[in-house]
Amino acid sequence: MTSHTAPADATADTADGPSPVLAAASRAREAAAALAPLPRATKDAALLAVADALLARTEEIVDANAEDVARAREAGTAESVVDRLTLTPERVRAIASDVRDVAALPDPVGEVVRGSTLPNGIDLRQVRVPLGVVGIIYEARPNVTVDAAALCLKSGNAVLLRGSSSAYASNTALVRVVRDAVEQAGLPADAVQLVPGESRDAVRELMRARGLVDVLIPRGGASLIRTVVEESTVPVIETGTGNCHVYVDSRADLDMAVDILINSKAHRVSVCNAAETLLVHKDIADAFLPRALEALAEAGVTVHADAHVLTFAGSSKATVLPAVEADWETEYLSYDIAAAVVDSLDDAVAHIRRWSSGHTEAIVTTSQAAARRFTQLVDSTTVTVNASTRFTDGGQFGFGAEIGISTQKLHARGPMGLPELTSTKYIVTGDGHTR
Amino acid sequence: MTSHTAPADATADTADGPSPVLAAASRAREAAAALAPLPRATKDAALLAVADALLARTEEIVDANAEDVARAREAGTAESVVDRLTLTPERVRAIASDVRDVAALPDPVGEVVRGSTLPNGIDLRQVRVPLGVVGIIYEARPNVTVDAAALCLKSGNAVLLRGSSSAYASNTALVRVVRDAVEQAGLPADAVQLVPGESRDAVRELMRARGLVDVLIPRGGASLIRTVVEESTVPVIETGTGNCHVYVDSRADLDMAVDILINSKAHRVSVCNAAETLLVHKDIADAFLPRALEALAEAGVTVHADAHVLTFAGSSKATVLPAVEADWETEYLSYDIAAAVVDSLDDAVAHIRRWSSGHTEAIVTTSQAAARRFTQLVDSTTVTVNASTRFTDGGQFGFGAEIGISTQKLHARGPMGLPELTSTKYIVTGDGHTR
Repeated sequence: MTSHTAPADATADTADGPSPVLAAASRAREAAAALAPLPRATKDAALLAVADALLARTEEIVDANAEDVARAREAGTAESVVDRLTLTPERVRAIASDVRDVAALPDPVGEVVRGSTLPNGIDLRQVRVPLGVVGIIYEARPNVTVDAAALCLKSGNAVLLRGSSSAYASNTALVRVVRDAVEQAGLPADAVQLVPGESRDAVRELMRARGLVDVLIPRGGASLIRTVVEESTVPVIETGTGNCHVYVDSRADLDMAVDILINSKAHRVSVCNAAETLLVHKDIADAFLPRALEALAEAGVTVHADAHVLTFAGSSKATVLPAVEADWETEYLSYDIAAAVVDSLDDAVAHIRRWSSGHTEAIVTTSQAAARRFTQLVDSTTVTVNASTRFTDGGQFGFGAEIGISTQKLHARGPMGLPELTSTKYIVTGDGHTR
Repeated sequence: MTSHTAPADATADTADGPSPVLAAASRAREAAAALAPLPRATKDAALLAVADALLARTEEIVDANAEDVARAREAGTAESVVDRLTLTPERVRAIASDVRDVAALPDPVGEVVRGSTLPNGIDLRQVRVPLGVVGIIYEARPNVTVDAAALCLKSGNAVLLRGSSSAYASNTALVRVVRDAVEQAGLPADAVQLVPGESRDAVRELMRARGLVDVLIPRGGASLIRTVVEESTVPVIETGTGNCHVYVDSRADLDMAVDILINSKAHRVSVCNAAETLLVHKDIADAFLPRALEALAEAGVTVHADAHVLTFAGSSKATVLPAVEADWETEYLSYDIAAAVVDSLDDAVAHIRRWSSGHTEAIVTTSQAAARRFTQLVDSTTVTVNASTRFTDGGQFGFGAEIGISTQKLHARGPMGLPELTSTKYIVTGDGHTR
């Protein structure tokens, strides 16, 4: 079966009648067809209307959010998670301002990626087009609901949003406000939809909606991402898992190495571009590790050390524990770091190839040859030379808003901006050309 | 589990001991790491050595192929299939010359896709890198074995080849010759491997080797492609299904329309860029359809017609049958075409959205507005204006050899050349930059 709108594995009709999820996906597909040819001005006007509506209806949004927050507190949710869930008038203002920022970004749709006149006189152009229907599965951050909707609208895509059920009331209110504004701006409201239903089955249906949904982007923990990767027949863009490394080469500026280590590890520990493992060349271990352990101790970081690093533990006030194998593959997202001494740059690369999630690895070195070899051999989305791992970020890269950081190699790798939310099509123009 | 080399769902050790397929994938992964940093000259030298070896060992290859051909004949295989399977000294020479052509293509690896200096002074570069390990599942065309190996080597990728068991002896001989040449050129032989075993289980293991295999490219029939899409946890690039349309607009040059229709349908019927459906605007039906049916009859094409087209059947010597719904979605790959009259360009677009596989659609028109609207609204890999659908081809597009034609939207869409066999990585260079 080759039809786009009703593939065998994703028909909106099931034995029990139409599935709400697939019906929503079908409506999104229709909306996507209407969005695709829209010029930038029309899409930007809709985005500005969304920003205005978020401000005008802040109270409605904050009230709905209060229900979620109350439920979370009753359930004894950790305050850090409750904080991420909470929407205040200030935070709604910030979300609205993010939407204006997206409107200000260039429109990726219509960009000519390749173009040439073929020897036979045919004009060939490869042009950016929207992906179509984008499904986003994410955790309890209501701001993602609006960010994702804005980025998808800007790139001409319809979006199916599946947030955490703990944010259901907030997301329902936010999507209601966004849809009203989109519709008043003359665009199809179904371009932005919450996936109906709070059950896991809804996610499962979404993952099987190949032919209706063009891509699924899971944002969140490793287990969520693994589930989607395992079960989805819809193409998936993996995001976010970051077991990032800082390697200090045999020749390095020690002050710089300490600054980059501490910034990479402790600037913000809960993010995917935070460092989780320190690798130190054996020739610089004696000079660097005492200073590194002291700085890590001051930053409140616990060190999970290999045998060589452990020998420096006594002379420092750092909390140093013996590392077990699991430490090399753990994304702590906390004030913890694994640390090991390596015999060479190539051994550091081998350790990274073995254990890294392929997100971001940093080298600190004064050697041009070492920097060149490290960047050539390390196979991760981003390799930094004498810079913090924390720079792997769409905002830092100048992409404006970011839909996520892809840790896979297909389609998008690293921070994903608006161009990563597009595909391309070839336009072949002739004067009656035949072969 | 975030390790690259031993993901939980793809470890080379199973209860029954190491799996040959996953062991091969692990060796391919090691080889890929060695290939990635190689300069173009080294890769090209290996490719030329492969071409020389194919010529020097033609007899060995042709003898092995004779076994496959004999088995196929015994099994009563259709002569057309036996012909595709057959290797002659001339065909081996042609394959060797294709390898030289690949060596002559530019190396995509190392190309800087984006580059800028960020406001904070950091230098940002996005650089093309190999995908890593590419798995290719294909049917009984031994030439694909060498073409795919050459394209993967050129782009710095290791390749796992799973051909049809009907070509097993031929593929085994070809891969032996290629591996010997690659090794003599100083590259790891395991960069090119046949997937061990002829059973379907081997394919299943390959599809589950996420973390070891970076992408699977199925080339062949719709059922093979659907199986891979359904069962693979390795990212897949869908190729090849082509239910292509030719739409003749209300204002069109009738001679041009007939030429493009016949070339699109009958130039070569067994290929994915051949036309399978003709759509005619009602205002031009009376003028065009009699000539179209006559030309299709001369080309030996049977027409599967809607009610309106049927009314022209009597006055023509064409074989015209009433179309059933299945005709609109069928990729005939034969001297058959479905034909319908539509009330408007938008109705033609709606028909295409409903039934097309999204490969290639052609419009024949003298109207600039119609050409513009059709190319905007049709969501297929390629849209041709006054040109045959047969131009959707890597060679025609000037990409040199082609690994396949992607009909999906992620990563690659349309004819895939060497750049589509690469990913990218970001290189961030600072002077001790921190956030």
